[in-house]
Amino acid sequence: MPTAAAVIIGDEILSGKFADENGPYLISRLRTLGCDLERLVVIGDQIDGIAAEVRACSDAHDVVFTTGGVGPTHDDRTLEGLAQAFDLQLEQRAELVALIDRFGLPRNEASLRMATLPVGAELVSTEGSSYPVVVVRNVYVFPGVPRLMRMKFEAVAHRFAGEAVRTARLYTDQRETTIAADLGAVQEAWPQVDIGSYPRFGEADFQVIVTLESRDDEALAAAVQALTERLSLVTPRS
Amino acid sequence: MPTAAAVIIGDEILSGKFADENGPYLISRLRTLGCDLERLVVIGDQIDGIAAEVRACSDAHDVVFTTGGVGPTHDDRTLEGLAQAFDLQLEQRAELVALIDRFGLPRNEASLRMATLPVGAELVSTEGSSYPVVVVRNVYVFPGVPRLMRMKFEAVAHRFAGEAVRTARLYTDQRETTIAADLGAVQEAWPQVDIGSYPRFGEADFQVIVTLESRDDEALAAAVQALTERLSLVTPRS
Repeated sequence: MPTAAAVIIGDEILSGKFADENGPYLISRLRTLGCDLERLVVIGDQIDGIAAEVRACSDAHDVVFTTGGVGPTHDDRTLEGLAQAFDLQLEQRAELVALIDRFGLPRNEASLRMATLPVGAELVSTEGSSYPVVVVRNVYVFPGVPRLMRMKFEAVAHRFAGEAVRTARLYTDQRETTIAADLGAVQEAWPQVDIGSYPRFGEADFQVIVTLESRDDEALAAAVQALTERLSLVTPRS
Repeated sequence: MPTAAAVIIGDEILSGKFADENGPYLISRLRTLGCDLERLVVIGDQIDGIAAEVRACSDAHDVVFTTGGVGPTHDDRTLEGLAQAFDLQLEQRAELVALIDRFGLPRNEASLRMATLPVGAELVSTEGSSYPVVVVRNVYVFPGVPRLMRMKFEAVAHRFAGEAVRTARLYTDQRETTIAADLGAVQEAWPQVDIGSYPRFGEADFQVIVTLESRDDEALAAAVQALTERLSLVTPRS
């Protein structure tokens, strides 16, 4: 299955001026698509930090998504960060300069920043948006504005599709310390299944939610069966 | 001012099974406290990944917060990750074993995991919670359950207090490409002020939100004045 990392770029997220909507969106959509998100990082607008994080993620994961930092102002530094990450020059792209003219924007330093990309960047045309998706190696560059980010992501989402993970949830009125050994034993017996244990304290009519996840239906069913036999399960009212 | 990084640990966040509430909480509280959050990372439950991320954050920031992975089950690996990060052994702590007895929990392998910490960990007693906050070097270890995390964070929050940042917001009906040069010039003239530019597209009765932030009141006022003279400002209706 494809593995992914997301790099959310923006001082405004870390300082709480704006809540990040793009991270939760990517989490939800990648899950549905069957692409395994292994890392999500929020960093500020500094070129060095962007370069280091993108490079590390690019090396360790099949695909990387960045959001933010691609506009015309001084705090938009994602493309410079990408150029530094991969030791690439920046070059003005004629097809993007033509877009600036078509948008009726002035051809000034600011607008031309948006037409300046790391050498070799792939441009993916998207329906419904005249500005293409920029791809540098395995890094997909999305804008920070949530509505635009979603439109562009959906235009290329099919590229990241894998096999969806199947999930089961069990609820028990036993405490984690009581069931830990059973969970561990079942996890060891079915390594293709990821078993998670999430306690609740006085908030619900159960003590622990146990989740089981796998792309192997037989293993998933067997692990559910094994835990059903070992745990005291309850049906939550809500 | 103190600088911070947050490491949110849990497969359940990356897979979208549960939304992360602790990251947004830390963003908001650290902002109010005047502690600069420079990085927020969400990673899974693997010991190697936890160790590498915590070590890097510990080296680069004054203080690190982890959330998640501190319960008694097989998927709780934060303390092992911390031990590996700093090349420390794990040891059972008598005062925590006593707590397990006091809670009426069975003394089994699972419960004793919660009494086993990297050598030299500091224990900070907290009102309202009998289990102390665990601190390893500059890393504060919080549970993943949001209610418990908040209680424990508040017990030690005074340790991270700095001088709060002051913010101003301006709204303009001009586009980013038009104002970018002015923003850049004012940013250059007042480097103590962080100027951010956030476009909106057809969602509001303005084109761009410009934010100015500083701990230097005079510089903040001067930069606001300079932008007020240069930009065409509007008052948003909503």
